[in-house]
Amino acid sequence: MNTPPADPARLSPPPPTNGPRVRMVPPGEDRERLVCPDCSYIAYENPKIVVGAVVTDDAGRFLLCRRAIQPRKGFWTLPAGYMELNETTEHGAAREAMEEAGACIAIDALLAVYNIPRISQVQMIYRARLSDPAIAAGPESLEVGMFAWKDIPWDELAFPSVVWALHEWREKAGQSGFAPGTNPPPPVEGL
Amino acid sequence: MNTPPADPARLSPPPPTNGPRVRMVPPGEDRERLVCPDCSYIAYENPKIVVGAVVTDDAGRFLLCRRAIQPRKGFWTLPAGYMELNETTEHGAAREAMEEAGACIAIDALLAVYNIPRISQVQMIYRARLSDPAIAAGPESLEVGMFAWKDIPWDELAFPSVVWALHEWREKAGQSGFAPGTNPPPPVEGL
Repeated sequence: MNTPPADPARLSPPPPTNGPRVRMVPPGEDRERLVCPDCSYIAYENPKIVVGAVVTDDAGRFLLCRRAIQPRKGFWTLPAGYMELNETTEHGAAREAMEEAGACIAIDALLAVYNIPRISQVQMIYRARLSDPAIAAGPESLEVGMFAWKDIPWDELAFPSVVWALHEWREKAGQSGFAPGTNPPPPVEGL
Repeated sequence: MNTPPADPARLSPPPPTNGPRVRMVPPGEDRERLVCPDCSYIAYENPKIVVGAVVTDDAGRFLLCRRAIQPRKGFWTLPAGYMELNETTEHGAAREAMEEAGACIAIDALLAVYNIPRISQVQMIYRARLSDPAIAAGPESLEVGMFAWKDIPWDELAFPSVVWALHEWREKAGQSGFAPGTNPPPPVEGL
């Protein structure tokens, strides 16, 4: 039985009808920018910084949050999110831990810098200790918990970089003054 | 003799008349965003990443560029600039070295992460070697040069972070696997 081809208009959201929405090379620029055809405003687009932390308690357990929002709603992640204006990367990581997990944390090192150029994201993940055992799910979390390494829900982690950061933590356990980790090499084809 | 008070309208640029220009808390948000009153477009503002490098040659000299653009036109700086979409931090640092100094570089470590929250900027400065001795000023540089430490034009450096990064390089010379430097502590009042 032949199925009719999918209607492309139903597969993607409608194009925006306001604001910067036309790609063109503005005068004096060397690459395409997003321009508003109504008022010529140029929306410069830059990579976004995600700040977060691998947070452990005195029992060596890891703080994870189950996502209440898309993408990957229902999956577990580190407390992390977009850095806001006028804060430092460390302050942003601590703010996200408080917002998403009600967690007061003490940062001690930059654990990793992950580049995700496909989505123009740079993730700066710190190593931190839980300063107070009280944690509580914020509005973007369904629940929060402290997990021993063997109890981490590995099959339900939200993003590859969560897996990378947890392993980076383990590799650097007990060390200080280390170079932050970076993306692991991609898997070798054919192996 | 009394001088008339300065006209404030002549001291600052006129307010924008198009694009997102009104600060308000949009529905469902927890902080003020920049909104276009004509079309309700929300321009999310995020900190910007500056990528750059302290680049040395086989003689241990440092690559500096004299700025052809504001701010700090005529002052010397490291090859560095805003990270673009769909590149990694390392690729961005290498791109800036090529664009501003015609320099082909090989990055070997993350030297420093500087936070400038006042202007919502995160600077990621790498340590790199010049792969080819040929360098040439790009459109944003008046001239480029290789400087021995004692010949660095310390009084004509463009930004504090240029000074910080050069000293960070010296502190980490010969080391690998080190934690990247961060902003130096602010000067103590009264000393």
